[in-house]
Amino acid sequence: MAVYTEIDDEQLEALLARYDLGTLMSCKGIAEGVENSNYLLVTDRASYILTLYERRVNRDDLPYFLGLMDHLAAKGLPCPTPLHDREGKALNEIAGRPCAIVSFLSGVWPKRPTAKHCHELGIAMAKLHLAGQDFPLQRRNALSVDGWRPLLEACDGRADGVRPGLAGELRREFDALAAAWPETPGRAGSRPLPHGVIHADLFPDNVFFVGESLSGLIDFYFACNDYFAYDLAIALNAWCFEADGAFNVTKGRQLINGYESVRPLTDGEVHTLPLFARGAALRFLLTRLYDWLNQVPGALVKPKDPLEYWKKLTFHRQVLGASAYGIERP
Amino acid sequence: MAVYTEIDDEQLEALLARYDLGTLMSCKGIAEGVENSNYLLVTDRASYILTLYERRVNRDDLPYFLGLMDHLAAKGLPCPTPLHDREGKALNEIAGRPCAIVSFLSGVWPKRPTAKHCHELGIAMAKLHLAGQDFPLQRRNALSVDGWRPLLEACDGRADGVRPGLAGELRREFDALAAAWPETPGRAGSRPLPHGVIHADLFPDNVFFVGESLSGLIDFYFACNDYFAYDLAIALNAWCFEADGAFNVTKGRQLINGYESVRPLTDGEVHTLPLFARGAALRFLLTRLYDWLNQVPGALVKPKDPLEYWKKLTFHRQVLGASAYGIERP
Repeated sequence: MAVYTEIDDEQLEALLARYDLGTLMSCKGIAEGVENSNYLLVTDRASYILTLYERRVNRDDLPYFLGLMDHLAAKGLPCPTPLHDREGKALNEIAGRPCAIVSFLSGVWPKRPTAKHCHELGIAMAKLHLAGQDFPLQRRNALSVDGWRPLLEACDGRADGVRPGLAGELRREFDALAAAWPETPGRAGSRPLPHGVIHADLFPDNVFFVGESLSGLIDFYFACNDYFAYDLAIALNAWCFEADGAFNVTKGRQLINGYESVRPLTDGEVHTLPLFARGAALRFLLTRLYDWLNQVPGALVKPKDPLEYWKKLTFHRQVLGASAYGIERP
Repeated sequence: MAVYTEIDDEQLEALLARYDLGTLMSCKGIAEGVENSNYLLVTDRASYILTLYERRVNRDDLPYFLGLMDHLAAKGLPCPTPLHDREGKALNEIAGRPCAIVSFLSGVWPKRPTAKHCHELGIAMAKLHLAGQDFPLQRRNALSVDGWRPLLEACDGRADGVRPGLAGELRREFDALAAAWPETPGRAGSRPLPHGVIHADLFPDNVFFVGESLSGLIDFYFACNDYFAYDLAIALNAWCFEADGAFNVTKGRQLINGYESVRPLTDGEVHTLPLFARGAALRFLLTRLYDWLNQVPGALVKPKDPLEYWKKLTFHRQVLGASAYGIERP
């Protein structure tokens, strides 16, 4: 939760004058989002979210993210629609930060996801994967295998202070995953698994529901081109473990069934799912560990416990096949 | 800016079930308010603010604050109206905290107040003072002279670390103000200045405007019974100094003229205004100094600079009469 950058009246007025949004009735910083500053704007016509992109977002990636939201919203996906100013621009600037205004989505994110929520999520994720197939821009997944090595190296000397023996375990895990990971999707000569645009961060706080109906997918700032099944593996990690660390196979099954009701998984994807689940667990373990070891005094956001993902990784390592996640194949 | 207490789905559902507010469409923590946690609730009928009262608010004071908002809103003042549940209660509980749901007010607080804003504020403050006159509950001002002494004592040993000589200056200032301060309003036998319900914290972030029209007064959690002119003195401190520390007499004049267009000041009030302005400056200097010296590691709120109020106090100490604030009397 955070608002990193305060904006003043003149700055806001100057920005809004570029758009045709009606009269400003309210502007409140909202305590959501870890990477960026977000304001809820209410005008006499509608509600909007103003996002200021802070230093952790690469400015060069913004056309991909905003273009993707435009593309997906046009295909009927319930995601924020970037507003274009009178010159047609979706990307502007305020208080020295790149910024965008997007449509406001109704809904509340589920603090305790149910199996029904997981089923709805699976459906929406598969629709996202299909809707992204003709999106023309490309963005490499900066937090796939290649991106884990520098995080690992940055944490190496201090990981044992978080958990004795962790540094060695992480090195071995990384080596095993790097050796087994399928080739970069799209590389010439490879016969890769199905791939395309993935969200790559579909945690519960990025998915809105009204009652038990999914009403919105937000926060596309990790979206990239990668394997579809890797997106599913991230969601298995993020949605299907209970607070006590147990994997809830009913939730896994509902997530996958929802997904497959829109886009059935190939045999290759089913086979690779346990590997991807391990990889996804390592990815969030490493980024959380890095943030844990590099806490900024006075930071507005409390770092998340990296060891939650150590426990998840341990679960995935003992999995024998995709049936552990609720996939039934004859 | 802060959300101190997170609430989960079940807790929120259980709370909302007590009220008749329609279907929940959105719930976002908002990055406003220093003392409490605030959520913006949107239902299919309207928007509301859910406030969780954190430890700095005395639970015994909540009936005064909520009753006052009810009273003032009923008199047409643009302040939040507490919602009553089906049993008629405005005060409930969530996540172990006392809480209330109030109506949402449109408007944006002015980051750079203008003289027009000050004029509007003066009008609204005088209306508040008049509207509160038949409010039956009483609350002593815990941050008037009696309340300054413990703050002074708590800061005494370390104040010189913030500014050399500050501890002695504060002691002398306190003694001078305590000796000159008018008797407690309402005390038997006294002939006090006009008094009644005051807001006691009308800083710009507690006053909303749509364009230059005042649309809301919020945050009544310092409201109490005290001298009306002391409320005006707080606002002179909070609204009429420029960023460079200079007092803007045009803003002061507009604030007072706005006030007097609704409720003219008595000669006694005009005479006492410089004393009250010094007192108000000392009050905010002391609370800021205390928070500055008692920073909690990992706190979500950055403490405000106490020396801003040292500079204001220095200004008020050299003032010769109320004309310095823009009051013209024949």
